[in-house]
Amino acid sequence: MPRNRGFVLASRPTPDAPAGPHNFKLVDIITGEPDAGQVLVRHHYLSLDPYMRGRMNDAKSYAAPQALGEVMIGGTVGEVVASNNARFKVGDHVVGAGGWQLYSLTDGRDLRRIEDDRLPIQAWLGALGMPGVTAWMGLHRIIEPKARETVVVSAATGAVGSVVGQLLRIAGARAVGIAGGAEKCAYAVAELGYEVCVDHRAPDFGERLAAAVPEGVDGLFENVGGEPFSRTIRRLNPFARVAICGLVASGYDGTPTPLRDVRVLLDRRARMEGFIVTDHMSLWPTALRELAGLAEAGRLRWRETIADGLEAAPEAFFAMLKGGNFGKQLVKLV
Amino acid sequence: MPRNRGFVLASRPTPDAPAGPHNFKLVDIITGEPDAGQVLVRHHYLSLDPYMRGRMNDAKSYAAPQALGEVMIGGTVGEVVASNNARFKVGDHVVGAGGWQLYSLTDGRDLRRIEDDRLPIQAWLGALGMPGVTAWMGLHRIIEPKARETVVVSAATGAVGSVVGQLLRIAGARAVGIAGGAEKCAYAVAELGYEVCVDHRAPDFGERLAAAVPEGVDGLFENVGGEPFSRTIRRLNPFARVAICGLVASGYDGTPTPLRDVRVLLDRRARMEGFIVTDHMSLWPTALRELAGLAEAGRLRWRETIADGLEAAPEAFFAMLKGGNFGKQLVKLV
Repeated sequence: MPRNRGFVLASRPTPDAPAGPHNFKLVDIITGEPDAGQVLVRHHYLSLDPYMRGRMNDAKSYAAPQALGEVMIGGTVGEVVASNNARFKVGDHVVGAGGWQLYSLTDGRDLRRIEDDRLPIQAWLGALGMPGVTAWMGLHRIIEPKARETVVVSAATGAVGSVVGQLLRIAGARAVGIAGGAEKCAYAVAELGYEVCVDHRAPDFGERLAAAVPEGVDGLFENVGGEPFSRTIRRLNPFARVAICGLVASGYDGTPTPLRDVRVLLDRRARMEGFIVTDHMSLWPTALRELAGLAEAGRLRWRETIADGLEAAPEAFFAMLKGGNFGKQLVKLV
Repeated sequence: MPRNRGFVLASRPTPDAPAGPHNFKLVDIITGEPDAGQVLVRHHYLSLDPYMRGRMNDAKSYAAPQALGEVMIGGTVGEVVASNNARFKVGDHVVGAGGWQLYSLTDGRDLRRIEDDRLPIQAWLGALGMPGVTAWMGLHRIIEPKARETVVVSAATGAVGSVVGQLLRIAGARAVGIAGGAEKCAYAVAELGYEVCVDHRAPDFGERLAAAVPEGVDGLFENVGGEPFSRTIRRLNPFARVAICGLVASGYDGTPTPLRDVRVLLDRRARMEGFIVTDHMSLWPTALRELAGLAEAGRLRWRETIADGLEAAPEAFFAMLKGGNFGKQLVKLV
């Protein structure tokens, strides 16, 4: 029997005690050998993603809240160390939803075998995983960028935004990033296909954004919300498309991101749509095939921030929500 | 030479002098005989529509503002009384954009001949005209109602809303109207296909609306804006579609209709889109064919409020903006 440990959600954020590492508790977990049909997976990496913050709340959302006292949900990559399931054998590399723990027992329905070992295993949690498919889906289902159109992307160097910029460049569109700090902005332009990147921490952010979109905004891939969102909306062109992918800067802690007047959508005949990548599982194989092909051809790059060891997960998670990561935030577990 | 008269826009609304009949001025207009290629049309009816209020402002919008001192724009039906254009002969009934005047001279590019004289001529300004096509387009391009879905429609008995309700009934969807006053609400249910209609003037409007959509809202056809919009948005179901067709209650006079938190679009994976019927002229023939077929089969009804004589146009226009009309607002000119 493996010696398993993991983080459970011990309490929920409250107005008096905002979300923080104190909401999680590290516990020993009894994980047995696989029963009939089950697979035991040893996790190599845990993915930390903004959506997890929403699950900490006990609020109506697109997903059920994370149950208290249960292992925190999360995407994982790892290897099969014991199997009682004909679909998986010991040594298989798999992507799954193992959660914030070292091992998981599963019936295999959440697992996808990684057939292609030419890319580092943790890539299947990032550019070739949920964030990459999110980027692909928001672009191809909602924004549908045309050549020479201007598309603004917030959190431009994050796990999602870094893929969006590169896919926009490939589509011949003009990618304009928004990111926090000069270093991220420089990286967005040098490596991620952005033609220009605007630092939202700059005191003259509004003027810089306006200068970055002299022909207006045809598409917005929104990962953050808040004031940059409002400023971008004002510059929408006729028939603009806005994909609402995430609202990290607001909402989770109760700060709304308002659309000050829906008339802007009428004046510009614009479309605004929220989406969740797991609503459209049928698109994943196509997206992953395309993303993996680009990665192998050297046309898709990414950066990772890797926290070392399970114990580091809570601090790394809250640092990421504040933009402390650079690229995909992972936790290395082995 | 005909003795033509018409209303020009004499001044624009200001914060100190809100829009009113004083902004228009009745003038004599010199209208000659048609030159080569031209057609002289005698107007039978003028259409009064909410979009005209937006054109009175000198603000950025989807259309250029109405020029001061020029005849106010507007849809008209009438008959050709002189023609120097091979496409039209004297006696033809035509729909056009003749404006707030008794006659218009045109090169014919804005004219459409009414081939079907089985329906009253003014219907081609209402259910079989721009408002009818607007209803058809918002439903079929944006809301795409499915059987048994709940779709809310504001200004449910107006020129657009009255067609929306009937098309929803035909599609097998559950139409929920919002209208001002008990009489309009009763008519919406008795004649226009609405299963229920909620009076937005009722002090307990919020509770009534909630009771009217026990299974939530799958679609919203928004013609008005303001508080009823905000209350409906809170009840959106996953994958809801919101067509922003008009915002009469707000905007024109500078009152915004906010979306308090765009997170609702993410939580519900909802889509919100503004549209203008003249952006998609290629769809008009299909829409008009379908609407005329329904009207001739007795499956599409409407009501009209007819002001008598050109002089009555300004008062009738502002009464309509306050909901004083019942159904399509027209001005009879002959």
